[in-house]
Amino acid sequence: MIKAGIIGSTGYAGAELAGFLLGHPEVQVVWYGSRSYVGEEYSSIYKNMFRMVDAKCMDDNMEELAAEADVIFTATPQGLCASLINDEILGKAKVVDLSADFRIKDVRVYETWYGLEHKSPQYIGEAVYGLCEINREDVKKARLVANPGCYTTCSILTLYPLVKEGLVDVSSIIIDAKSGTSGAGRGAKVPNLFCEVNESIKAYGIASHRHTPEIEEQLGYACGETVVLNFTPHLVPMNRGILATAYASLKKQVSYGEVRAAYEKYYGEEFFIRLLPEGVYPETRWVEGSNFVDINFKIDERTGRIIAIGALDNLVKGAAGQAVQNMNLMFGLAEATGLGRIPMFP
Amino acid sequence: MIKAGIIGSTGYAGAELAGFLLGHPEVQVVWYGSRSYVGEEYSSIYKNMFRMVDAKCMDDNMEELAAEADVIFTATPQGLCASLINDEILGKAKVVDLSADFRIKDVRVYETWYGLEHKSPQYIGEAVYGLCEINREDVKKARLVANPGCYTTCSILTLYPLVKEGLVDVSSIIIDAKSGTSGAGRGAKVPNLFCEVNESIKAYGIASHRHTPEIEEQLGYACGETVVLNFTPHLVPMNRGILATAYASLKKQVSYGEVRAAYEKYYGEEFFIRLLPEGVYPETRWVEGSNFVDINFKIDERTGRIIAIGALDNLVKGAAGQAVQNMNLMFGLAEATGLGRIPMFP
Amino acid sequence: MIKAGIIGSTGYAGAELAGFLLGHPEVQVVWYGSRSYVGEEYSSIYKNMFRMVDAKCMDDNMEELAAEADVIFTATPQGLCASLINDEILGKAKVVDLSADFRIKDVRVYETWYGLEHKSPQYIGEAVYGLCEINREDVKKARLVANPGCYTTCSILTLYPLVKEGLVDVSSIIIDAKSGTSGAGRGAKVPNLFCEVNESIKAYGIASHRHTPEIEEQLGYACGETVVLNFTPHLVPMNRGILATAYASLKKQVSYGEVRAAYEKYYGEEFFIRLLPEGVYPETRWVEGSNFVDINFKIDERTGRIIAIGALDNLVKGAAGQAVQNMNLMFGLAEATGLGRIPMFP
Amino acid sequence: MIKAGIIGSTGYAGAELAGFLLGHPEVQVVWYGSRSYVGEEYSSIYKNMFRMVDAKCMDDNMEELAAEADVIFTATPQGLCASLINDEILGKAKVVDLSADFRIKDVRVYETWYGLEHKSPQYIGEAVYGLCEINREDVKKARLVANPGCYTTCSILTLYPLVKEGLVDVSSIIIDAKSGTSGAGRGAKVPNLFCEVNESIKAYGIASHRHTPEIEEQLGYACGETVVLNFTPHLVPMNRGILATAYASLKKQVSYGEVRAAYEKYYGEEFFIRLLPEGVYPETRWVEGSNFVDINFKIDERTGRIIAIGALDNLVKGAAGQAVQNMNLMFGLAEATGLGRIPMFP
Repeated sequence: MIKAGIIGSTGYAGAELAGFLLGHPEVQVVWYGSRSYVGEEYSSIYKNMFRMVDAKCMDDNMEELAAEADVIFTATPQGLCASLINDEILGKAKVVDLSADFRIKDVRVYETWYGLEHKSPQYIGEAVYGLCEINREDVKKARLVANPGCYTTCSILTLYPLVKEGLVDVSSIIIDAKSGTSGAGRGAKVPNLFCEVNESIKAYGIASHRHTPEIEEQLGYACGETVVLNFTPHLVPMNRGILATAYASLKKQVSYGEVRAAYEKYYGEEFFIRLLPEGVYPETRWVEGSNFVDINFKIDERTGRIIAIGALDNLVKGAAGQAVQNMNLMFGLAEATGLGRIPMFP
Repeated sequence: MIKAGIIGSTGYAGAELAGFLLGHPEVQVVWYGSRSYVGEEYSSIYKNMFRMVDAKCMDDNMEELAAEADVIFTATPQGLCASLINDEILGKAKVVDLSADFRIKDVRVYETWYGLEHKSPQYIGEAVYGLCEINREDVKKARLVANPGCYTTCSILTLYPLVKEGLVDVSSIIIDAKSGTSGAGRGAKVPNLFCEVNESIKAYGIASHRHTPEIEEQLGYACGETVVLNFTPHLVPMNRGILATAYASLKKQVSYGEVRAAYEKYYGEEFFIRLLPEGVYPETRWVEGSNFVDINFKIDERTGRIIAIGALDNLVKGAAGQAVQNMNLMFGLAEATGLGRIPMFP
Repeated sequence: MIKAGIIGSTGYAGAELAGFLLGHPEVQVVWYGSRSYVGEEYSSIYKNMFRMVDAKCMDDNMEELAAEADVIFTATPQGLCASLINDEILGKAKVVDLSADFRIKDVRVYETWYGLEHKSPQYIGEAVYGLCEINREDVKKARLVANPGCYTTCSILTLYPLVKEGLVDVSSIIIDAKSGTSGAGRGAKVPNLFCEVNESIKAYGIASHRHTPEIEEQLGYACGETVVLNFTPHLVPMNRGILATAYASLKKQVSYGEVRAAYEKYYGEEFFIRLLPEGVYPETRWVEGSNFVDINFKIDERTGRIIAIGALDNLVKGAAGQAVQNMNLMFGLAEATGLGRIPMFP
Repeated sequence: MIKAGIIGSTGYAGAELAGFLLGHPEVQVVWYGSRSYVGEEYSSIYKNMFRMVDAKCMDDNMEELAAEADVIFTATPQGLCASLINDEILGKAKVVDLSADFRIKDVRVYETWYGLEHKSPQYIGEAVYGLCEINREDVKKARLVANPGCYTTCSILTLYPLVKEGLVDVSSIIIDAKSGTSGAGRGAKVPNLFCEVNESIKAYGIASHRHTPEIEEQLGYACGETVVLNFTPHLVPMNRGILATAYASLKKQVSYGEVRAAYEKYYGEEFFIRLLPEGVYPETRWVEGSNFVDINFKIDERTGRIIAIGALDNLVKGAAGQAVQNMNLMFGLAEATGLGRIPMFP
């Protein structure tokens, strides 16, 4: 059994991770970290876990945890993982960081967008960007994986074949994304109260959201050029789900079939990516609770643009599910182990 | 492998059942019945099943199905199962009926409350009421199980120990129940449109809901007297979940501990019933997606009443999950096989 | 023009009140009090008011406000109004208190249920309980009105004719109430976050909610005896609305028409109470945004009980609308002035 | 008093219109048309209107209605108004058509996008496109007004100053719009059931939605060139509200102030358009129930694009409110008469 510890296990992503690890046949959770609830029964915070988890919340002593665990998941605010990690920890345990600390290779970009000083830039180089479908082989060998953001996973996977195959003008990319409210976290803030979110939709982080440089960097690797794009997230009155609607100008006239072939080339064998039948477009309800990403696209001949759409569950493929997928790769397990949840509808 | 067929697989309960059977290690689904969608790809109706189910919808030819399947689930409107079932079918396959046809032992009560003539009353006697926690041994031997209703399961399990142990005056029982909207089914009706349900709550079926006699009959068996009670269902703007708030007058002054002991006596060893810690009350969010029933109660010394509260997921323990639990018992499998889903929150 | 000040104008009830007063032809708001936001533009907190309110938030200096205003509304936490009020203030301005401070005549009951010392019990006697339909004449002469609670208004009005006319056994009354989430206020608390409330229903304050003694006291006045009852509130995933489902044993066999006559006797001329047609039951969607209370009932001959149901908008008839209705009475205006909002659906 | 008739008064837009006309000081509704409910009490369909409307539903005999009414509103499916209208009707009553029949000047464009033959193309020329803020003077003189679509009103008003002033490259315009579910109408269809819409978001009508040519035509008039753009609507789990997020490339580097001046030029005096303070962006909750459109924008220097965002209530400024605003203009009333509703939050 792989012994796993979670730092930040009482946030929404951390709790989703706890749920997946609990159902994972090869994992035993040895540490439910939660600075806010140290000493309290985990199942008194997440009552869905009543009688399933019999453990008290621990602090975020990552060194002590490294001595007990084979793998550490950090589902914590930006900066924490970078401030705690060190050679000793990495020598004892593999680390999957669900925060943004090791996602961006250019430390100045990270520091600018996040407004933080990076406390351990020496590990940025070795950290593998854990988008399994793209970086599978590198993940297998990694001891530190930067688990991608929720918006990022959805946006990159939706656009990747188009950019990689040079089908679109990368300077024309616009991503209009919509997220369920669990993406805003479990902090007690007025804007996230039920009555503030319900019966409304809004854009936020307009032209300034932190997932922008992450998307740009990864798509830049795909095409070999600098990518600068527009990314606009929106808050939707639902618990889970991200829908990314991406627009880009096609470089030349292409058919649905030609573009479909590009998607099949990269995703045809991927279990967790479902290319929908022609004419059927992603809806978040069809992936809820699962690790799937549903993708499809339409070519608009009138404007010469392609509209590519992706949907995933922000807490699963956008966070905890992908973290488990990365862990599976890192430990040589079958990639889908413990990730068998069928999307739950309604 | 147990071969299973579902009649009515495109309603919400039928689809939930399909999902559970798909993840069941001992079952293979051989028949996705759906009169409305005969010949259509199942995964074109329930797109969450895309790439997981590769089958077309079949009609409701129960005789043909009985020749292929070891177990038949009927998740159909009242009256259909009773009109199709016969000795030949029951001789070939076990049947779990998710409709009300075989739940009520007194055929006149059935015909009065449902406004239907019962087409095969000869099987009412042998049908076992499939509330596993109460009738486990009978279920194991049954070839025809009447799977209980969603409100009914929640109401009976919440009150059973109180009634069985004679702690309450059964003539004082009032059950005020609240259900998510999936309980109303997938029929295209104006009252179930999003804008009609959202931002509202209403009572319905006041003093006339069909689950009333079912609750009364089962509680009557528990206490050995005729039970007549008030049951009022309410429609809540959420997808899943039932909360039953039950009121009854205590026969004598008792402590929390004494009543708790009664609940522990019947449910202490039950995996799917979670008696919550004192002072913690059921909320539907904590059971969503799972086969759990959460129960607790409070004694109000001012009024001499007990308020007992239960919560479950109407599509799982209230329908498909319980059907699988029954099937497991009928086929000698471990009762929780394929029912390992941890409640999904948020 | 009546000059009005609001203490606590940035809570949900206070903001609803601001909206009603803004549309009131005889009122000018001179003071938007909000301790939390002193000095900030009111319309930067409630952006629906952008370009409609041009004022900054003020502190809760009730003495200074009394010098400027003809009427003061206190939409504040329990205890504040009682701690600020004095003879000088009451000599200058009429006061409508939306908190519980002056609702309960027995100060010990108040102090027990609220866990607070009452700071100005000398005004409890003169304070009029502002349930306009019951205490209209007293409200007209009052200088201090205790505006009833939201659950209370709904519960009392639903049961009043039954209790007043002696139709039911008051010891048998059980009120199962359901509220939208705005009733929980605008405080930043985890249990009120969108993801915690959405897709769930729960009971709370079981056998201990503070509105219980208020309901009991008022129904006690109606029947001339002590009333002890069960009141159980539930939190519903919607913004607004309260539905009260009340159960009581009928003292003798009566027809729908006989009971209807009792309701007509008290409410037949009431503009804001709508007795629905026989067979039609209240739903919160039909009163949303308005000052209406919709009421109807059903007699269950099987159990000898009556089920009476009422619905209102907790922020309107349950708070701000009723406060305006009280103000209208206190100032000799037509009772419905400024309260003409038609329920908004969907 | 202006006598008004509504054809299609039991759809969501028609009912919202009935509500506004009921509160309008200069209007009396003489005809509640509804083919589906002929002969039924209007308030039995829309129970919010109980005791406020005492009338039965009428058929859609527009000729008979024209003899009784000064103004006819048609809130009906595409094609109906065009099939009923004639010179006699237009000679007797003014008509405000809330359907698409007279919005598009090029009949071939209409017939192509709507898949219908236009039954009275002879009136297309005289029909005035009733976007009051743009065509106010023409509306005043019109006898037939084509009331704009909900998405269209939001999209055009959000982009108009940018296009009119030549600030953006019109070939670069992309509009990503999000709508509440009331926009889908009150028809009983499975995709609009609560459980299908709740907890999900989807795009629909991708590169093919019928509001596209309407937006293109009107923006084309503003800039004097043909406009071809991308418009993608999305369905959001909320009752009301449209948010349009529009992207366009700026022709040259401009400051926020310069662009703001363009918006102020056209909207500075408009009552129903609220240009929000810099840095504050539209959210649908702040306009709900009102006739306001909230607008703001951000310049993204990194990409050279502007992101302009608009929000309105689809049933008000996107349908019924705008229809009343048009009627007011046509009858020489103050434009905001009867449209005083303050946005309702929460």
